[in-house]
Amino acid sequence: MALDAVKALVFDVFGTVVDWRGSIVREVDALAAALGRRVDSSAFADAWRAGYQPAMQRVRTGDLPWLRIDALHRLILDGLLDDFGWTVLDEAARDRLNRVWHRLDPWPDAVAGLTRLKRRYVIAPLSNGNFSLLTNLAKRAGLPWDCVLSAELFRHYKPDAETYLGAADLLGLAPHEVMLVACHPSDLRAAKAAGMRTGYVARPDENGTGRSPPFEPHEFDCTADDFVDLDRRLGGED
Amino acid sequence: MALDAVKALVFDVFGTVVDWRGSIVREVDALAAALGRRVDSSAFADAWRAGYQPAMQRVRTGDLPWLRIDALHRLILDGLLDDFGWTVLDEAARDRLNRVWHRLDPWPDAVAGLTRLKRRYVIAPLSNGNFSLLTNLAKRAGLPWDCVLSAELFRHYKPDAETYLGAADLLGLAPHEVMLVACHPSDLRAAKAAGMRTGYVARPDENGTGRSPPFEPHEFDCTADDFVDLDRRLGGED
Repeated sequence: MALDAVKALVFDVFGTVVDWRGSIVREVDALAAALGRRVDSSAFADAWRAGYQPAMQRVRTGDLPWLRIDALHRLILDGLLDDFGWTVLDEAARDRLNRVWHRLDPWPDAVAGLTRLKRRYVIAPLSNGNFSLLTNLAKRAGLPWDCVLSAELFRHYKPDAETYLGAADLLGLAPHEVMLVACHPSDLRAAKAAGMRTGYVARPDENGTGRSPPFEPHEFDCTADDFVDLDRRLGGED
Repeated sequence: MALDAVKALVFDVFGTVVDWRGSIVREVDALAAALGRRVDSSAFADAWRAGYQPAMQRVRTGDLPWLRIDALHRLILDGLLDDFGWTVLDEAARDRLNRVWHRLDPWPDAVAGLTRLKRRYVIAPLSNGNFSLLTNLAKRAGLPWDCVLSAELFRHYKPDAETYLGAADLLGLAPHEVMLVACHPSDLRAAKAAGMRTGYVARPDENGTGRSPPFEPHEFDCTADDFVDLDRRLGGED
């Protein structure tokens, strides 16, 4: 089987490893309560996330210089706070809220599944999140990565091919020796085009809809319900 | 105390975390036995290591293009095998031997000390070893890094300032919020010049001499006998 050559698994993070939406909703609700305000925290989280792809596109086209996700999140947040009428927040409070992305909670299976997968593979995030964000997030959540890989190391955001190829190169592996694990078909398609193997994990609750985006049967090398299931499907023993 | 601001500890690896000399001696002795040869494995290890600084200097001056330590180790090794009369080794055997640097054993206190330090600090290697070497070494040895930092990420070998400054930047920290831990005064002096805090750990057995290189009293922010002692001196509780 072609997957016998796989030596490392690299993981999309926002949505695939961590529940960004639930985490942000909880922090925004707590902040609103502390301020004595009402807020639609789900709409807030969705709007923050919705600004993410357009912000990366501005970097990709050169409209913005290279900026970390921390800086892009902050740009989006400042606009949001205006839209939601939260202009009362001062610089320190904005910075603290912006760093909620360093404090996202993992899906319930993530730590157990990664711990199993780590027995037989090098495991690392491969995220558009900046290096310190991914490092802080992993430390807080107890994600047992062997190393941290970030788009920041390549100054190219996924789905640019440089990010996938750069990750394999740093690991000292050929692309076909690396599998990207993600819940987003678009990310997996770009990894596949770069020569990587692909592992799809369903995260139907990522956007609060209970629905996953569509993809073709057999489009990816492996599909799984969660990380523990992924380990079993790759031959890991219980 | 100035050390209250320290949030991350980054570690020199060869000599400071792992016993490169003892590890190479063991593998070279085993290889010699398998080949039915005699070899002065200590001299072999020392000669291999002695080629390291000059090889990095050739990269630094532009005499060689950017090359990973794996490639520099191999250049040195091929010369050594000629010198030691081991030209019998084929390509696969040379590659396997060259990757002994991915299989170095940690000093006895390293895993326990790092595990303690990780409770209060972000911990990472900051080594001239390439990224995959450091990742593979840590996985095999059980070093509990939060992330892996390598000179390869900056394409500058220590003691170039770019490596220290680049590490702090990736961690999202100012240099004075990062402490370099090393057994080599020259490495610590370069980190200090770049604005980092410095922690000296004695490794008198690194070169098989039982002697450590000299340095001035109070030259570094902290001096310790090993990593467990370092944690205690930084205020970690037993």
